[in-house]
Amino acid sequence: MRNIVYYVAVSLDGFIAGPDDDISGFVAGGPGVDQYLKDLKAFDTVIMGRKTYEFGYKFGLKPGEPAYPHMRHYIFSNSLQFDKKAGNLAVHPVDINVIKKLKAENGPDIYLCGGGEFAGWLLDNEMIDFLKIKLNPLILGSGIKLFGSSKKRMLTELVGIKSYDKGLQIINYRLNYKGNG
Amino acid sequence: MRNIVYYVAVSLDGFIAGPDDDISGFVAGGPGVDQYLKDLKAFDTVIMGRKTYEFGYKFGLKPGEPAYPHMRHYIFSNSLQFDKKAGNLAVHPVDINVIKKLKAENGPDIYLCGGGEFAGWLLDNEMIDFLKIKLNPLILGSGIKLFGSSKKRMLTELVGIKSYDKGLQIINYRLNYKGNG
Repeated sequence: MRNIVYYVAVSLDGFIAGPDDDISGFVAGGPGVDQYLKDLKAFDTVIMGRKTYEFGYKFGLKPGEPAYPHMRHYIFSNSLQFDKKAGNLAVHPVDINVIKKLKAENGPDIYLCGGGEFAGWLLDNEMIDFLKIKLNPLILGSGIKLFGSSKKRMLTELVGIKSYDKGLQIINYRLNYKGNG
Repeated sequence: MRNIVYYVAVSLDGFIAGPDDDISGFVAGGPGVDQYLKDLKAFDTVIMGRKTYEFGYKFGLKPGEPAYPHMRHYIFSNSLQFDKKAGNLAVHPVDINVIKKLKAENGPDIYLCGGGEFAGWLLDNEMIDFLKIKLNPLILGSGIKLFGSSKKRMLTELVGIKSYDKGLQIINYRLNYKGNG
């Protein structure tokens, strides 16, 4: 079994992006971000929703290309199509069985890259094993919520915390679904 | 000038209470809560909205009584009335000038007890000086947002962090309004 790790930047008020996908207020460099980039090397598989993949276009990603060259990409969408695409990238229908099959494999943890709506769907289906937040010293006020429109309530377990400069903290929580409500 | 400190328990997804004011998932005892109770002793004045005051009724507070006996209570409401009330409690209209006058006094910091909507109104009016969160290992999914319906976006400055057992952290952020937005 492989764990799904939702590793994501979040504001103090629970948003992963502001209006119009604005992420300009998040800490963009320094030791905390270096640690995040280092941590990404441990993943060999990334899962994400369509909007998160397409968000990459703003930063130069070309359609069909991998956002993280060393990872297998599972993009979940019922509509997305590419004329050509890289060998390590596949589009899958939004079907929880694809996720279950992926988790049943042996291998390193799976990186859940986002976005909020996709993460909320996975949370509702009890598929996320770790929530690793990059807690930013920022109030966003509105935008994309950490778990989109999911209303799921659950207790988590703090398993790691580290503070970095610029007020950034990386905090890791384990999600145990058994006996939780 | 006195600082207003919004000292509040919050979930990982930015809620200060779940549906129906549910706070049962927040850490309710132990060293972190002891620290919070100790910190409260430093305040001599508390401000809050009507709903937050009335929320105390659930826990045995009687109308007109102070929630924190050692503090002066400023409850902000355009409708709340009491038959009789304690000498250290006053109801004020929701008027930013009352807040400004209070801040202009000399004395210890002012405790902003909540709730989200009242805090959002104060944030919109740039009256909150510190946001001190009790970050709980909890996902709430819905409920009362940290700043209610406020849409204000701003960068903050981390000024203190301490971890306690049960996954609780108390993290203090300074809010500088100059050059922010």
